[in-house]
Parts: sequence; C-alpha cells; structure tokens
Amino acid sequence: MEKETVRIENFSDAVFAIAITLLVLDLHVPSSEIIKNGSDLWNYLKEDWASFLAFTLSFFSIFIMWVNHHKIFKQIYTRNTAIMFSNGLILFLASAVSYPTALLARFFDGEASSTVVAIYTGIFVLINLSYNLLWFLASHNRKHLRPEITDLAIRKIRNNYLYGFPTYLIAFGISFEFPKIALLISMLLWIYWAISSGKIDISKS
Amino acid sequence: MEKETVRIENFSDAVFAIAITLLVLDLHVPSSEIIKNGSDLWNYLKEDWASFLAFTLSFFSIFIMWVNHHKIFKQIYTRNTAIMFSNGLILFLASAVSYPTALLARFFDGEASSTVVAIYTGIFVLINLSYNLLWFLASHNRKHLRPEITDLAIRKIRNNYLYGFPTYLIAFGISFEFPKIALLISMLLWIYWAISSGKIDISKS
Amino acid sequence: MEKETVRIENFSDAVFAIAITLLVLDLHVPSSEIIKNGSDLWNYLKEDWASFLAFTLSFFSIFIMWVNHHKIFKQIYTRNTAIMFSNGLILFLASAVSYPTALLARFFDGEASSTVVAIYTGIFVLINLSYNLLWFLASHNRKHLRPEITDLAIRKIRNNYLYGFPTYLIAFGISFEFPKIALLISMLLWIYWAISSGKIDISKS
Amino acid sequence: MEKETVRIENFSDAVFAIAITLLVLDLHVPSSEIIKNGSDLWNYLKEDWASFLAFTLSFFSIFIMWVNHHKIFKQIYTRNTAIMFSNGLILFLASAVSYPTALLARFFDGEASSTVVAIYTGIFVLINLSYNLLWFLASHNRKHLRPEITDLAIRKIRNNYLYGFPTYLIAFGISFEFPKIALLISMLLWIYWAISSGKIDISKS
Repeated sequence: MEKETVRIENFSDAVFAIAITLLVLDLHVPSSEIIKNGSDLWNYLKEDWASFLAFTLSFFSIFIMWVNHHKIFKQIYTRNTAIMFSNGLILFLASAVSYPTALLARFFDGEASSTVVAIYTGIFVLINLSYNLLWFLASHNRKHLRPEITDLAIRKIRNNYLYGFPTYLIAFGISFEFPKIALLISMLLWIYWAISSGKIDISKS
Repeated sequence: MEKETVRIENFSDAVFAIAITLLVLDLHVPSSEIIKNGSDLWNYLKEDWASFLAFTLSFFSIFIMWVNHHKIFKQIYTRNTAIMFSNGLILFLASAVSYPTALLARFFDGEASSTVVAIYTGIFVLINLSYNLLWFLASHNRKHLRPEITDLAIRKIRNNYLYGFPTYLIAFGISFEFPKIALLISMLLWIYWAISSGKIDISKS
Repeated sequence: MEKETVRIENFSDAVFAIAITLLVLDLHVPSSEIIKNGSDLWNYLKEDWASFLAFTLSFFSIFIMWVNHHKIFKQIYTRNTAIMFSNGLILFLASAVSYPTALLARFFDGEASSTVVAIYTGIFVLINLSYNLLWFLASHNRKHLRPEITDLAIRKIRNNYLYGFPTYLIAFGISFEFPKIALLISMLLWIYWAISSGKIDISKS
Repeated sequence: MEKETVRIENFSDAVFAIAITLLVLDLHVPSSEIIKNGSDLWNYLKEDWASFLAFTLSFFSIFIMWVNHHKIFKQIYTRNTAIMFSNGLILFLASAVSYPTALLARFFDGEASSTVVAIYTGIFVLINLSYNLLWFLASHNRKHLRPEITDLAIRKIRNNYLYGFPTYLIAFGISFEFPKIALLISMLLWIYWAISSGKIDISKS
C-alpha cells in the first residue's frame, strides 16, 4: 500500500513552521524615544517578561503539536475528506495560537490575567479535541492506517490524547481563579507530551 | 512518464501555507490603555467579531483552494510555460486574499459593509476563473495529464469548476444589496467544495 | 550521478515562497476613522493604486526569479561552498525585494518618484548579476552540471542572463529621468523572461 | 538503514527559511509626512544604516546556521526524543534571532549600543551551545549516525563547533566595552564557518 498523505504532511509541516516562526513578531521593540541608554533597555526587557514567557511557551507548544502530528501521520496511509478537514481544523488552531499568545504577552501581568489565561488554555482544550477527532477518524475502521500497526499501538495513541483532555480542561477550569497555576500545568504538559511522544515510538516495534 | 511537477507543487504548497498562516496577523491585540480588566477584554473581543469571522472564513477558503490545487495537480504530469504562469496567477490571488480579508474584518460591521463584501466575493470570482483557466490549459489536449485519466474524470473536474463560477458571480452580484447573504453563500460554497472534492477522488478509480 | 542539491532547492523554494507572500503585508488597510462609507473606501483604494501596482510587479518578479532558479537548478547536480553562497546571495536579494517594493508603493506617486524607481530597478540589476554569478560558478568547469547537458544549452542559459544585464542597467539608468518608463521596461522584461524560460526548456532535449 | 529524519529536516528547513525571510520586516519604510522628495529619502536611508547592517548580518548568520544544520543532518540517520528537542532548541533560537536583530537595528547607533551588541552576540553563544548539544546527543554512541561515517569525521565536526564556542564568548565578553569590534568578530566568524563548512564535506570521503 502506497502512502498517499505526503503532500498533506508537507503542507501541514509548512503551516506549523510558519505559525511557530511568526510568534516572534509579538516581541515588540521599544521606541527609541523611551529608551535613552542601556539600563533603560534592560528595564524595558525586564518589565516585558510576560512577552518572552508567552513566546517560549507557545513556541514549544506548537513544536510539540508538530511532533505529535508527525507521529500520527506516520501511521496514516490513506486519507478521505473527513481526515483532510479534521487536519485542516488542527492547522486552523495551530495558526490561531499566536493570537492568544499575544493577548497573554500583553495582559498576563495585570488585571485581565485570568481572562487571557482562560483564553490561552481554552485554545489548547480545542487543540486536544481536534487531535482526538483526527485519530478517531483515521483509526476507527483501520483501513486508513499503516497495515502493520498493532491494536495495542492504536489504543496507546488514542489513550495518549484522551488522557490529555481532562488535564487541559482542569488547566482551563482553574485559570479563572489561579491563572499562574493554570499556566504552570500547561508547561508541565510539555514534559508529559515529550515523554509520551517517546512511548508511541516504542509501541510501534 | 515521470511526474515533473513536484517542485511546482512544493512551491505552491508553501505559498498556500504562508498565505493561510499570515491571516492571523489581522487579528489585532487591543492596546493596554483601553483594556483595564477582564470584562473590558471580553467586550473588545465581542465587538471585534467581524475579525474572527473573516479570519475563519478566509482560512477555510484558502484551505479549500489548496485541497483543490492538490487534486488538480495529482492529474497533471508535465508542464509548459502557460501552465506555470496560470498557476502563478492562482498563487497571486491566494496570497492577495489576506487584503480583502483585512478590509472585511475592519468594515463589515458598518457603512462600507457592501463594498467590502463585494471586494471579498469579487476576489473569489477571479480565483474561480483562474482554476478554470489552469484546468483548461492542462487538459485541453491531454498530453500534460496523467496517462490513465478517463475522459469522464476530465469532464467532472471541468464541470466542478465551471459550476462554481455562476455561484460566485451571484454572491458577488447580490453583495451590493445584501452583503450578509452574499457572505453566507460564500460559506455554503465551502460545503459544496468539500463534498465535490470527494467526488473527484471517486472518479479516478 | 546522484543529484545532491535537493535540500538547497527545498530551502530556496521556501524562501521564494515566503518572500512572495510577505509582499501582501505592504497593502495597508485604512483606519476606520477616515473611512466612513463605501465611497470613502473606493476613493482610498483608487488613491493607493501605486501599492497595488508595486505588489503585482514584485509578485511576478519574484515568481519569475523562482521559475529561473528552478530551471538553473535542474541542471546543477552537485554543489560546493561557492555555489552554496552565491545561491545565498540570490535568496538575500529575493527576501530584500519587499523593502524597495514598499518604498515604491509609498513614494512612486510623488516627489521622490525617481529615487524609489532607481532603488527598485537597482535591486534587479543586482539580482541579475547574482544569477550570472551562480551560473558562472556552476558551469565554468561542467563538473557540477547534469552530465547530459550540451554545450549549446550551457551557452544559451549563460546568454539568457547576460543579455538581461544591459537591459536592467538601462532601466536603472533612465529611472533618474523617466521613472515611469523605467518601470515599464521592468514589466516588459517579465515577458522576455517568461518566453526565454520556455526556450531553455526546449534546449534540453 | 533507512534515513528517518526527512520530515525533521523539511520542518527545520521551513523554520530557517521563514526566520531568514521575516528579517526584512524590520526594515521600516519612512512615513510620507517626513519624506518630501528624493534627497529626504536618501538621507533617511543613510541614517538608517544600522538597520541594513543588522539585516545583512542576521540574514547570513541564519543562512550559515542552515548550512551547518544541513551538514549535521546529512550524518544523522535516526532520531530519539532528545535529538528531536535539541533540534527544537536550535529552531527556537533561529526564530528568535529576529528580535535581537531589531534591537540592534534600532539602538546600535546610540547610547544603548553595547547593550544591544551584548544581547546580539549572546544569542549566538546560545546557538553555538545548542549545535554542540545536538552533535553530542547524535554522535555520543554512534547508533544515530550514518553507518559509514569515520571517527575522524565525527571528531572534526565536534571540534568545529567546540572551537566556535570560545570565539563567540569572546565576542560577547568584549561587546560591553567595544561593541563595534564584537560585531566585527561576529562577521569574521561567517568566513570561518563558510570555510569550515567546506572542510566537513571533504572529511566524509
């Protein structure tokens, strides 16, 4: 069976690559009117810490989305319209991440903090749902998958994304009260995805 | 016969991917001077609904353009200068979509509503024409096409784009009087293209 | 002999694709404070004609650069450091085109007209030189070229770029006195490149 | 042994290509209110020389990063999570380069000069470290490398990046006192990398 998803993967790679690289446009260079010397600049950069945090957080979040996309599509050999459009939904959300990131950068350090963290964690709830949807559509009758894949591997991938859902939901839920903890959970989820992405690899052999 | 259009497809994929991802730059982050707390931010986002609508509409429009480009180029094996430049025209229009989108985002909710919807639907009339042109140039003497393609499949693809033309023209025409309905037609055309893109697939076998 | 320039071509394609798509960012959306209704918008768009001209001119200029890059690299099979960096120079200039384009868009219709046309045509003189350099470095001892290429084809490609040089230089020279004619020559050169790009194709067989 | 890093290379190529092309967005077009004629424009461009220097310096720095990435990944055949994420770190830094570049463009010619050169050379210290890390992770037990690679070639690549480290550190260190010399060292390092990138090539055969 020939793999017919190459051009989808290339297109998706490009969208992830652009989305991840555009994030830097939200780091603003201060006007030369307010920066007179080196210590003004250091102060500006220190006060702007939320921008650098948001940039870093979103960069690695999209990077992990791409790693996971990569892993899922290694198992998908053929496509139909539903797979095509659920992949489109993932790309839509990936390209949209930069907007909540910019909101987070500007308002995390202030009164609107819980609102921007709720929006930020909220988009990752949607992203998790869209990965669950893609894997469900690709795997529910096996005919779109790599022929050699085992039932165990299919279930492992499914569970991997299913277990992410309540965690993102919790981060979203507590963001209204404890925005800093909610953001911390999002960061810890990186480690979960980094390790679990390794686990999928092992399950293939 | 070797397929010699690989680098054209890669370049086109990249242009579509960038055009689709740049759309997010039209979502503006409000200044911290007008946003004092969370409810200010929610109100800002609610009033800015036209931006989110325009972003979503254009994202999936370009995504469908890419899906269709993908389908057409699966059938094209060799190229000449005319095919190269009619593809260039498609890419020109795809990369330009972000401008009418930004106009729509800013002026849909106001006096200039019918003007921006006319410009927005107008560019999709041109896009439809450019796809018709590409398919005409590629298919009119068959020598550029995949050797196994049937006459039926060639006609199906041709009709698919031909039938789109009057619909886009109607959306354009009524946009001067009923901009909201014109935009609704553009959204309904997504469903048409999503389903018809499936139909082309079937006709190959 | 294996073609070892695939990743260079992919990277170059991506740079051309991004440079061509970023041009749209120079089309500015007017503020909603100065646009009260549809006719205000039409007037704004009409007065901004130089932006649309500059966008179109630069889009097809970069597109033709890519077509030519494509043609040249079809003949290059191996690379050395000099080829790598002369290709880097082409990409540098391609990515820089958007700046003279933005200058042209803003100042073509005014006092600084001849200055911006000189800068704009000047960058294309440099681009032509960089293509001449790339082809010289790749072809001067044949060992980097596709083994089947004929001497005639090598000379045809060389002459194609050599003849472009005086024309671009003339456009640059007269831009100080007759900026509109200089820009017209740049547009006519598209047709020259479009046709001559076809000629290279023929010379291969 | 099959090379399984193709999609990583494609994704990395795209990130480098976007990062390198976005640099042009830091070249600002002056407002038409302050530019009345051609000589105003020439004066503006002359005063803005630091922007053009920063653009050129960063373009070729990222280009050389890509050339080196290319060379390293020609030797890497399989990947694990650590390689994946150390590559992610390189891409993170590559996409971030545009921010110190924009700072350099705006403040190099003024009081904050040594601060922005320290930030600018500082990011290249981090980039050098991330390349050393990637090569360490890929080469320390050889199983991820191209089977035919010799011990000599592995050591040559390692030394190549190790020797870069003190040089970047010196540039960083003296930037606080002599920012112009520090920047000059960064430019001279281009030549070092350009030549040494050729040396890796030779060591393979």
